[in-house]
Amino acid sequence: MMASALDPNKNLEGPTLSLATGEPRLADIAEIAGVSMSTVSRVLNGKATVASSTRRAVLTALDSLGYDRYRMAGARATGLVGIILPELINPVFAAMAQVAGTFLTRGGYTPIVCTLTPTGPTEDEYIEALIKADVDGILFCYGMHADTTAAHDRYQRLGSLGLPIVLVGGHAPDVDVPQVAVDDATAMSLAVRHLASQGHRRIGLAVGSERFSPSQNKRIGFVEALVDAGLATSLDDAETHVVPSAFAIEGGQIAASELITAGHTAIVCGSDVLAIGAIRAARLRRLRVPEDVSVVGYDDSPLMSYTAPPLTTVRQPVRPLCQAAVQALLDEMRGLNPSRELLLIEPELVVRSTTAIAPSAD
Amino acid sequence: MMASALDPNKNLEGPTLSLATGEPRLADIAEIAGVSMSTVSRVLNGKATVASSTRRAVLTALDSLGYDRYRMAGARATGLVGIILPELINPVFAAMAQVAGTFLTRGGYTPIVCTLTPTGPTEDEYIEALIKADVDGILFCYGMHADTTAAHDRYQRLGSLGLPIVLVGGHAPDVDVPQVAVDDATAMSLAVRHLASQGHRRIGLAVGSERFSPSQNKRIGFVEALVDAGLATSLDDAETHVVPSAFAIEGGQIAASELITAGHTAIVCGSDVLAIGAIRAARLRRLRVPEDVSVVGYDDSPLMSYTAPPLTTVRQPVRPLCQAAVQALLDEMRGLNPSRELLLIEPELVVRSTTAIAPSAD
Repeated sequence: MMASALDPNKNLEGPTLSLATGEPRLADIAEIAGVSMSTVSRVLNGKATVASSTRRAVLTALDSLGYDRYRMAGARATGLVGIILPELINPVFAAMAQVAGTFLTRGGYTPIVCTLTPTGPTEDEYIEALIKADVDGILFCYGMHADTTAAHDRYQRLGSLGLPIVLVGGHAPDVDVPQVAVDDATAMSLAVRHLASQGHRRIGLAVGSERFSPSQNKRIGFVEALVDAGLATSLDDAETHVVPSAFAIEGGQIAASELITAGHTAIVCGSDVLAIGAIRAARLRRLRVPEDVSVVGYDDSPLMSYTAPPLTTVRQPVRPLCQAAVQALLDEMRGLNPSRELLLIEPELVVRSTTAIAPSAD
Repeated sequence: MMASALDPNKNLEGPTLSLATGEPRLADIAEIAGVSMSTVSRVLNGKATVASSTRRAVLTALDSLGYDRYRMAGARATGLVGIILPELINPVFAAMAQVAGTFLTRGGYTPIVCTLTPTGPTEDEYIEALIKADVDGILFCYGMHADTTAAHDRYQRLGSLGLPIVLVGGHAPDVDVPQVAVDDATAMSLAVRHLASQGHRRIGLAVGSERFSPSQNKRIGFVEALVDAGLATSLDDAETHVVPSAFAIEGGQIAASELITAGHTAIVCGSDVLAIGAIRAARLRRLRVPEDVSVVGYDDSPLMSYTAPPLTTVRQPVRPLCQAAVQALLDEMRGLNPSRELLLIEPELVVRSTTAIAPSAD
């Protein structure tokens, strides 16, 4: 288990108490907050008619009494929250579904998961279904908001319907809701610096389609890191070391094959699944990983330490990412109007056995 | 993609048509079925008041007109179907969620996934949530029905509420609903015969808790296969080669370690996750897989061909399993009263690189 406490004062794992055990506590809260008991009740029931300052006063009173506000809300709410995310075959999304679901459960909500697949319902169909199911909120993980070519009015519409939502993993600056993403520029910098320090001079990037903002951010982070490391003379020069690919093992294999042909000794990949394809591409040319070609993944999906060889990868911090996203959604559902500024979560490099000192350039 | 068509006449991938394009078709159906248009309409709307024989006549008429009954139902229904299954961190359950979801979508339903985790909602809480969300049916995959120590009245209760359900992967003979599972006796026989044919004389089984019917079935299948292969003198003798373990990498490691200490050269595992633990146990003793110890998994989860070494495993046929289960649920939701007899799906052995000829017994 990773330790995680983005904000210890809002730790979702704190001690829990339920208001259900007695009314007197309502009075305590009302007294401390300097409001009426009915106002406390309206805050606890999530009524929109309470002024934001009053709401904060009540919740501050709750905190001062040692109540876990989310768990308390949970003792009342038996609400559903939808989690919409891409296909579960990519284990990092399965992990996100599970971790976000756990945090939502702790917050008193029942998570239901909707997976976007090529042959499944569309995101809009899921949204309709979730509204029909009367959900209290929706977490969008790597959804259409991450697609820069897609219209984003669906999110604005949900906002105007008063349905709380949070966007995870992909930034849509035009949408006025809380958003949480991984700092992909840092992710790429970690990978490039690790490889450069091992003597690699030709480092390539196999990354998903430019349509998606996480792929865009990786590309930008990568080319900047390459220039910073002195491995490209300009951003334009650095761009020549980027090969876009489909989000699949085969996509990684094709892109890596092209990079190897062009003389790259190290390949950074936009996902672990792409990295598995890159390892396969090297093997098909009878090159050894890591002796001949180094490969770095991205995600650190479950089981990646058991690949052959165990994968060096940039860990997408699923637990803090989901914790921050769920916290923002809980705040949004409680009418606390959490920050609209993009919250970036820091990734970390996990060095295993697919990277090594560059082969000597004879 | 595996080819799959359990019953070509009910192929969910068939051509699709929608009744929405015109009323005249209702008349065509009514004429062929020899019933009134209102009866056709009642069948299409899933009313329970239609006699089973009438329902069949209408659906047969539909088939004869070339309509895909499920897709047609889907053109009308925008219903939700819940899929309840264990944690997605085990990639085979993520695959099931995805594949069952795809078949449900083709059937015109929107799948929502509920995952059972130690810290998440209980199965009963999910059931309440799904009823609240007004689902049209629930698919239970490896749920409490597979736990032989758990009460099964919840399933009977859903039946009496008229909510169609299907149980997948675990047989509850006391529950009167359609059930689909993998033939685990055959699965174990495939693994034992493969190892015996390579000269292994001491074959052990690392398997999940006896509480769960799939584990029970694997144990029974294994001991019978061991006797059949002449590797145990009796079922009781064969039982001494079984070590129960927790459903986790560490569980597989501990059980395998015990089996290796007892002189086993081959270990059959109840899941791929357990097999990863078994490989780790061998390595920690500086034994090579497969030269010193052979390991067979169970599931063939996604990405298992990329482990070190690529895992020999019994494939749990996720696609036919889910297709059969969804078909039974669609039939149940259409009031067709599908068979209550347990439908067993045949597994297959996928030989990769963790099994080899037994080390010579010096």
